[in-house]
Amino acid sequence: VGNDDAIRETVERYLTTFTAGDRDGWLALFADDATLEDPVGSDPHRGREAIAGFWDASRQATGNITLRMVQGPNVTAAQCAFAMEAHAQIGDATMIVPTIDVMTFDADARITSQRAFWNPADVRPA
Amino acid sequence: VGNDDAIRETVERYLTTFTAGDRDGWLALFADDATLEDPVGSDPHRGREAIAGFWDASRQATGNITLRMVQGPNVTAAQCAFAMEAHAQIGDATMIVPTIDVMTFDADARITSQRAFWNPADVRPA
Repeated sequence: VGNDDAIRETVERYLTTFTAGDRDGWLALFADDATLEDPVGSDPHRGREAIAGFWDASRQATGNITLRMVQGPNVTAAQCAFAMEAHAQIGDATMIVPTIDVMTFDADARITSQRAFWNPADVRPA
Repeated sequence: VGNDDAIRETVERYLTTFTAGDRDGWLALFADDATLEDPVGSDPHRGREAIAGFWDASRQATGNITLRMVQGPNVTAAQCAFAMEAHAQIGDATMIVPTIDVMTFDADARITSQRAFWNPADVRPA
């Protein structure tokens, strides 16, 4: 159970930095060799530089994105899952993307892998 | 995207059969060599017989258990995740266990693996 609270803190900061557009603060939450697979089934981005590229592409595709926690994080065995809604501003519209993130962590509660479960068919207007 | 709907149907039946106490109906949703890791971090149960043993142990530990969907299933690449609440009757009390299940499926939309993210620290009375 050692660093469950540190993991919860990382997830909290994951949502707040992403929502605030704090690129550096968000990237600092990942281990150097972390992987990010978003959506699950796509080729994972490996390493912080590739993950930074994912951030930049996401921000070009949409305006502000607000992440709202729905359930969790459910932390167990240095891993966790949490359900959230991504509220993405696209032009004048806001679209809600129901998303579940699954993460693993190192001993310093940095993210070693992130996998995001979401499906375009579930996206709906706010 | 082929069998996304079949996977959603399997998840729906997973919740309804589990809630109804329909042991055989629930077990039929798994592939023969499926694994079940509940909670994540524990030794996985391998094969339908071992998974039946998990069912029996769960039912001995508690009375009725009602599974209520919170978000999902978010289906992608023949995998899915969903957030639910397990409402477990223990004596006169009902305890709520916030849980996120992550599953993989075969071509027939049978469950090939289940991993359940929950933490005793998050359990609360109803």
